[in-house]
Order: sequence, then structure tokens, then C-alpha cells
Amino acid sequence: MTNPKLDFWFEFASTYSYLSVMRLPELAAQAGVEVAWRPFLLGPIFKSQGWDTSPFIVYPAKGRYMLRDMERLAQRQGLRFRHPGPFPQNGLLAARVAQLALETTRGIAFCQNVYLMQFDEGQNIAEPEVIAACLEATKLPTDLIDQAQETTNKHRLRETTEEAMRRGVFGAPSFTVGDELFWGDDRLEAAVEWVTQARP
Amino acid sequence: MTNPKLDFWFEFASTYSYLSVMRLPELAAQAGVEVAWRPFLLGPIFKSQGWDTSPFIVYPAKGRYMLRDMERLAQRQGLRFRHPGPFPQNGLLAARVAQLALETTRGIAFCQNVYLMQFDEGQNIAEPEVIAACLEATKLPTDLIDQAQETTNKHRLRETTEEAMRRGVFGAPSFTVGDELFWGDDRLEAAVEWVTQARP
Repeated sequence: MTNPKLDFWFEFASTYSYLSVMRLPELAAQAGVEVAWRPFLLGPIFKSQGWDTSPFIVYPAKGRYMLRDMERLAQRQGLRFRHPGPFPQNGLLAARVAQLALETTRGIAFCQNVYLMQFDEGQNIAEPEVIAACLEATKLPTDLIDQAQETTNKHRLRETTEEAMRRGVFGAPSFTVGDELFWGDDRLEAAVEWVTQARP
Repeated sequence: MTNPKLDFWFEFASTYSYLSVMRLPELAAQAGVEVAWRPFLLGPIFKSQGWDTSPFIVYPAKGRYMLRDMERLAQRQGLRFRHPGPFPQNGLLAARVAQLALETTRGIAFCQNVYLMQFDEGQNIAEPEVIAACLEATKLPTDLIDQAQETTNKHRLRETTEEAMRRGVFGAPSFTVGDELFWGDDRLEAAVEWVTQARP
């Protein structure tokens, strides 16, 4: 019997995913928990709920609150949080490249660099040059960008997104341990604890 | 200069408010924080966001998640959580009576009894007999129910709800310290901490 594993579902446009992406590696290492990093797209999930953009745009009071909440949480975590000019950004290219980057030992560093580029530097991660700069900063080859556009890789992202939806994911970040779903950066500790308690 | 105070905004139909209503008194006492208990109505706020019922009904994936999340959180807090038959319940009468009960020393106990009646016992708090039972359990006179229906008291609840909306409240439970807004039971500790740090 293998140890249970934590599936970590994140979307590159998601502000609260930034917090989890930056703190999950240390937390999981301390708890000895294996994590599968699963970039996915919120767009199709939001669409199925009748939204054509982020709920933080659809519901302005929630959007204003999110910005302040993120400022407070980022500060506590020692991170800078800058509201990106266009919001939500298009995380499609970043997610496709991340799938390939995560097959290397530098995948997590790449993901963190993309979030820092967006929410610390204020760059637009929809632009291929920005993703190229993230790859360079991570010492990964920039031709991953072309490879990321191949049909198999595109399909893979679509399948991951469909799997997320099937598993009840409706926002990001989310965490699953088998059938158990946790939603939001503020449930990260509970999700990690769930894995350690489920150990045989 | 007076000490800053925590405004606690709660709605009787709200599942996550149950958690805060049960644990806030002890937490605030430990921190020496003064709390103003402000029952309000989510209905008019949801309506202004285009919903005619709870978001947990509007978005079924979110609703399914909330039930499981509440189960886990209630268990951790040593509470029972039973999904009330009709959901969301109509918390109007409970809120009106709570305004009067909170003018006595037994107001908090009354609020806790209403939540226990709903989420532990599974009763419908829209029914006057159920509210009467809560008053009796709290040793408060049941004629508060008639007093609660007086025009001044009805207006007061409407004004509190309008104040909540003006202050950016879009869900429950919420906490405000001056202009600082915290949303959700999982922000309760941060809100209490904010008060203690804002002390002169």
C-alpha cells in the first residue's frame, strides 16, 4: 500500500494560489507529504457556473475585499502583493509550460517564478516573453514554450481541468486527498494534516 | 481615547456564523477584546449581487463543499453539525429577537441557543415556537417575540443591514475593526489580533 498523496490544484491567474505556491513546498517537506502539482484552468469551471470572468470582477465587494485580504496575508508571509494591471490575467500559456517544467526538478521553482513575476513584479504572464524570462530565471530552456503548444500537451491541460471539475473543484487553490476536498489557501494546513492522518 | 472594538456581523441562516458564534466569546475574553454583536440580514445583500437565495444553492459545487467543510470544522470544534432540512432558513425573526436579547446579559447565550437549535437539533428557526423555546432555554421572557415585531425594532435591523453593506460586508460571518474588514470564520483570529494591535 502506498502512502496517500496530496493533489495541489492551482491556477496561475489566482491570487490566493500565489500564497499556497510559495509556502506549500516547505510545509509539505516538514510533514513528509508527497505533493502532485496540478496546474489547471479556472475559466471553464467559472463558465459552467455562469461567470465569464473572475468572481472578484463579477462581485465587486468581494473583489475589493480580496485585494485587502491578500495584502494582509502576503505581508504576514513576507511576500509583496501588487495588484496586476489586467486582472484576471490569462494563465493558459503559463499552465501549459508548467506541465512540462514540472517534469523536471525545477518545476516548482518555475511556478514560483511565474507567480512572483505576476504579483510581485506586476508583469503580464500572458506574454510569451514574460514566460521566457521565468524559464531563464529558473535555468530551464525557453523552447519549452514551443513544446507547450503541442497538441498532446494542450489536451493534457484540458483533461486535468476536467478531472478537477469531476472531483468537485470550483476554485483555486484547492487540495484533494482521495475524495477529500479542501478549498482555499486557508485550508492548506488542514489538507496536509489530512494526508498525515490517512497514512497506513 | 477609547479602546478599539470588534464589530461582529452574523446572520442566523449562515452555517459558518454558527462556528464563530460558538467560539468568539471565549476568544474575545482571552484577548480582552470588546465585541459588538450585530445580527444582520444577508438576503438584501445577496439580492444586490443578483442572487435570490444562498450562494450555496446558486452554486451547487460550492454548496456540497460547504457541507463537508462544515462537518470537518464543527467536529474539530466539538460541535455537531446537522444540515437543516430547509436551507437557507429564514433568520428574520431570530435576528429581530436577538437585537432585544442582546440588550440583556443573556443575549449571547440566546444567539448560541438559536444556532444550536438549528444546526445541532435540526429545528426550523423561522417558526415562532422554536424561537420561544430558545428564549425559554435562555431564561428570557417569550414576549420579546411580540416586542421584536414593533416598527422601531424592524427599522433597526434594516439599518444595521444597510450599515453592513456600506461597510463592505458581503457575507457572514464578518468582522470589522474601524475600516478593516475580515470575512469568514477562518479570519476570526486575525480580526481579534487586529483589535489588540490597534490599541492605543
